[in-house]
Amino acid sequence: MTDARTVSEKPSTKQMADAIRVLAMDGVEKAKSGHPGMPMGMADVATVLFSRFMKFDASRPDWADRDRFILSAGHGSMLIYALLHLTGYRAATKDELSNFRQWGSKTAGHPEFGHMPGVETTTGPLGQGLANSVGFAMAERHLAAKYGDDLVDHRTWVIAGDGCLMEGVSQEAITLAGRYRLNKLTVLWDDNEITIDGQVSLSDATDQKGRFKSAGWAVKSIDGHNEAQIRAALKWATRQDKPTLIACRTKIGRGAATMEGSHKTHGAALGAAEVAATRLGLAWTHEPFELPENIEKAWKKVGRRGAKERKAWEARLAASSQAADFTRAMKGDLPEGAFSALDAKIAELVETKPAQATRQSSGAALDELFAAVPELIGGSADLTGSNNTFVKGTPILDAPTYEGRYVNWGIREFGMAAAMNGMALHGGVIPYGGTFMVFSDYSRPAIRLGALMGVRAIHVLTHDSIGLGEDGPTHQPVEHLAALRAIPNLLVFRPADTVEAMECWRLALEHKTTPSALALSRQKTAAVRTVAATENLSAKGAYELRAANGEAKVTLFATGTEVPLALAAADALEAGGTPTRVVSVPCFELFFQQPKAYQDDVIGRGTVRVAVEAAIQQGWERFIGEDGGFVGMTGFGASAPAEVLYEKFGITTEAVVAAVKARL
Amino acid sequence: MTDARTVSEKPSTKQMADAIRVLAMDGVEKAKSGHPGMPMGMADVATVLFSRFMKFDASRPDWADRDRFILSAGHGSMLIYALLHLTGYRAATKDELSNFRQWGSKTAGHPEFGHMPGVETTTGPLGQGLANSVGFAMAERHLAAKYGDDLVDHRTWVIAGDGCLMEGVSQEAITLAGRYRLNKLTVLWDDNEITIDGQVSLSDATDQKGRFKSAGWAVKSIDGHNEAQIRAALKWATRQDKPTLIACRTKIGRGAATMEGSHKTHGAALGAAEVAATRLGLAWTHEPFELPENIEKAWKKVGRRGAKERKAWEARLAASSQAADFTRAMKGDLPEGAFSALDAKIAELVETKPAQATRQSSGAALDELFAAVPELIGGSADLTGSNNTFVKGTPILDAPTYEGRYVNWGIREFGMAAAMNGMALHGGVIPYGGTFMVFSDYSRPAIRLGALMGVRAIHVLTHDSIGLGEDGPTHQPVEHLAALRAIPNLLVFRPADTVEAMECWRLALEHKTTPSALALSRQKTAAVRTVAATENLSAKGAYELRAANGEAKVTLFATGTEVPLALAAADALEAGGTPTRVVSVPCFELFFQQPKAYQDDVIGRGTVRVAVEAAIQQGWERFIGEDGGFVGMTGFGASAPAEVLYEKFGITTEAVVAAVKARL
Repeated sequence: MTDARTVSEKPSTKQMADAIRVLAMDGVEKAKSGHPGMPMGMADVATVLFSRFMKFDASRPDWADRDRFILSAGHGSMLIYALLHLTGYRAATKDELSNFRQWGSKTAGHPEFGHMPGVETTTGPLGQGLANSVGFAMAERHLAAKYGDDLVDHRTWVIAGDGCLMEGVSQEAITLAGRYRLNKLTVLWDDNEITIDGQVSLSDATDQKGRFKSAGWAVKSIDGHNEAQIRAALKWATRQDKPTLIACRTKIGRGAATMEGSHKTHGAALGAAEVAATRLGLAWTHEPFELPENIEKAWKKVGRRGAKERKAWEARLAASSQAADFTRAMKGDLPEGAFSALDAKIAELVETKPAQATRQSSGAALDELFAAVPELIGGSADLTGSNNTFVKGTPILDAPTYEGRYVNWGIREFGMAAAMNGMALHGGVIPYGGTFMVFSDYSRPAIRLGALMGVRAIHVLTHDSIGLGEDGPTHQPVEHLAALRAIPNLLVFRPADTVEAMECWRLALEHKTTPSALALSRQKTAAVRTVAATENLSAKGAYELRAANGEAKVTLFATGTEVPLALAAADALEAGGTPTRVVSVPCFELFFQQPKAYQDDVIGRGTVRVAVEAAIQQGWERFIGEDGGFVGMTGFGASAPAEVLYEKFGITTEAVVAAVKARL
Repeated sequence: MTDARTVSEKPSTKQMADAIRVLAMDGVEKAKSGHPGMPMGMADVATVLFSRFMKFDASRPDWADRDRFILSAGHGSMLIYALLHLTGYRAATKDELSNFRQWGSKTAGHPEFGHMPGVETTTGPLGQGLANSVGFAMAERHLAAKYGDDLVDHRTWVIAGDGCLMEGVSQEAITLAGRYRLNKLTVLWDDNEITIDGQVSLSDATDQKGRFKSAGWAVKSIDGHNEAQIRAALKWATRQDKPTLIACRTKIGRGAATMEGSHKTHGAALGAAEVAATRLGLAWTHEPFELPENIEKAWKKVGRRGAKERKAWEARLAASSQAADFTRAMKGDLPEGAFSALDAKIAELVETKPAQATRQSSGAALDELFAAVPELIGGSADLTGSNNTFVKGTPILDAPTYEGRYVNWGIREFGMAAAMNGMALHGGVIPYGGTFMVFSDYSRPAIRLGALMGVRAIHVLTHDSIGLGEDGPTHQPVEHLAALRAIPNLLVFRPADTVEAMECWRLALEHKTTPSALALSRQKTAAVRTVAATENLSAKGAYELRAANGEAKVTLFATGTEVPLALAAADALEAGGTPTRVVSVPCFELFFQQPKAYQDDVIGRGTVRVAVEAAIQQGWERFIGEDGGFVGMTGFGASAPAEVLYEKFGITTEAVVAAVKARL
């Protein structure tokens, strides 16, 4: 057999797509692990998308006005690695491809943001890439409103599979996109009728097109292996005034010699025999990771396709009066003086000592920050008044203008958090979103991915304990502080009063590569920071709020609304002649990043140690040791007014004093 | 004004509904907390449903063949409390109503299963009641197939609000119901166009009817205040061959004097003036919680409406050859000899010592249990082969027969877990469901509610660590053991080998009022239980797997696949002359329920203590104290083969030995 593709004639689109197929098949085969079925099935669609529609320049993966490509079906990671390699992304070397899924490679099992340039978001947990993409598209529209189409005018393309569409979060995502008429968002659905367990029909009978239509999308069906249909549909998508779904009917594992169309191609290497037979069927004579010259050339040309447009954009940026601001915002740097108003307010607060709920304090922090940090954009999952997320006078972000900064996220905690990740990844905005803390369980999968990716998304979680009161145990977080603190690379703040709330908001903004969760009270609480400080005391995570009179015999640790309770217990103990210090612990994570000596100083191992937090004990042992006392919750809450619950569950000054006395 | 309703004439449906309105308004007013808007808005629909369609007998809330009523919009709890009170449920006294949301009352802020008879499931976290209802309806169809229509033939009625329908889990729920053609499930959507933040249109523009149609539902719209339309629609619903959605266009806070239709009626007391004006408008002259005699009578009659049907059913049950089995199953008792095969297998395994993944061990346990416990019914969220949830030869549960016991849950982790809760609450079945452990984040809100309710739902969570390997950090649980252990009343099992896996499965089944999560490995692991035991050693949560040679100087704690690693470290330490004991810890929760003396014995405070678990440390301090060693993870995983990851992340025998030596 002669291999026509080694000569310099222009390859067909099918031949270019075959390059993806073979790379995917070979990458998985070498790793003996991975998912060849999806890349092989969607190779034709991806080839047309990249070679004719996607605005990108492989030499500049960080070009701000590039189209975003989101592989929501992240298990098909070889598809994106193959595309990046073929189009000439510098980092996507042949070595990386052949080290797929190995230690130290950039070709992670599922695509990971920050590993391989060109991967816009970390995907794999199904549905979330699609939900991220809504955030990308919202950020794009908002920034276009702010900086003009000359600087911001790009599309978001998503490949999603049946798994993405079956996950509930996809409903939250598509109804958000529909509501906000995000017409520059296109989902290419790999409609291959296959899931891991077999035919989709085993477990699902949804009319997906009807469903998307009902969410306000324009929809179209095509044969995902027919080049003309793919081209026509992509062109159609760019002309709609709504988000678009293209149902691409494909064969999973397209091109596989005997396994095409079988769920067996989904999640495992095809095996040497099938790989050989597939090579034969595709008339592919090259070794693994080697490419016919003409195909290699044609793909490299695709990768350079956007260079001219990129350069024109750079010229427009250079000429723009907004260049510096745009560049700063896209880098994620804060404006100069971002915290001037906040710091001035803190200086005032140590004097005025307001007693208010920490959710109000968080709202007060937003009041100071909103004008100073124009990138801040956010809202609430339908709990605006309760979450104190709205800054008076803020216009609503809405179609068709998108210049507002307040987002009505709707009752979509997970979709909100995932869209926030997408916004943060897009850049140019700093997203926040509010809900009740107990519903961080709903948004948790996205909080986790945000932590893994290192994005600055700020989760405003109010009603942070039994202090929520009458709504009862379904709405009372008990284990959520521990569960959130368990997530690596997430800053969990529980400020005690308005000063700490402002300090924590500042820290959340200052940490560019870490999401934050702010745990905030429903109920009013006393001011505890009543002395001016020259530094952000919350920055160390825990600090001595009040020293003992004399050599400390007792250390009390507390967070949030329990700090005043610890202070009152310290008063009682001091009155009884027991020198007692009080440590406020607004953030475990920052504390355990401090030098050991500082940690030891704060913890005070020689003292009797008792912690109080209206939550379960798990995690507090690092402060109180094995024999320390803990005053908190041991199970679910109950329905009653907050003060009754604190009394009934024994979270009181008396209980703290008793826990100390039992250990003195 | 004369009050016609104090005389003994038959009240109108509207007047009966007004009784709900006034009770709801007064209950919330007295508590100064709650949600009057929904009960007032849906009072007419609920009145027609209860007085004409619902099969129930207020004197027997536990009648097995009753229709189930699920208030998915749980914030409207006064609706169900009012209905239970009016229809004469013994527990729903006037005192309970007037103690709404107070300490010790049965009238919790949101309806709670196990507090007030007649409340079928705990609701409030939005969307989950609807998802529970799918489990109820699946259990009903399955039991009807098993025991016949004579014993099982009832419907599931759900009231859901816009919040329920916006939550992603509702999509998973309705597509499950549509796929399985659960025609005895009817959702009454409180289509009031209002959410907490204002008009639904602020955040959503979904054509809900179109959406449900695309999920395979029959849909109908009505005026939710028009009795004739309500009656016709409910009758229509009972005649469909698919699940049914009735969109009830209502006014939130219907009847409120000036606030009808406003989101202000949603989540707060109306206030004294509005309450007084509303009384006037409704011509309601009675004091709070007092009822006009004719209305009281009419409602009580509704409550007795089903008595005759219930008695006839009891007669059929008494005459049935299946009576004993049906009654046992509905009580949740296990059949005699449920564990004979399992115990025999365990006796065999300590001899054969198979080295296999604990997910395979879990599958082996299911193999032994499936025939012996016919109530077991479950499946996987599209990971059947990976989760080892399928017992060979099991028929698939599917329409129209429903007699199968294997459920293709689809890619719907949250919907699956919530439906499992519904199945368990329905009774007669013991549900299980499999997914990757990392996706317990997706199902977490339902796992939590299951724990709060105390239902026996068994979560099979495979691929429980970095041992998952090449799929990478998106799929590798790191914080999930800690996060699951944080949930009160959840048993988290991490068995070390096949014997422990079988013991843990037995414990999961034996605990009738506690959900369980089984953390199971992807990778092969050695048998560690190689000596016959007369008891279930896992039942104590932690036990000395191997004693030290001589007086122990070191205690090593481990779970799951890290137990062999601890044993190897003990070998090395013993070889060096350091007496070392090894404690296997299959279940933290059961261990901390043991007597203090047993806990102390196992923990061995005088020894050097080191724990090893391929997860974060949080929670282990209770075993190892403040100065103990921990070998595990400190952040997210990576993509590479499992053995490489263990090596690179330093979870090795050598690391355990080094952690000990640093402390000797």
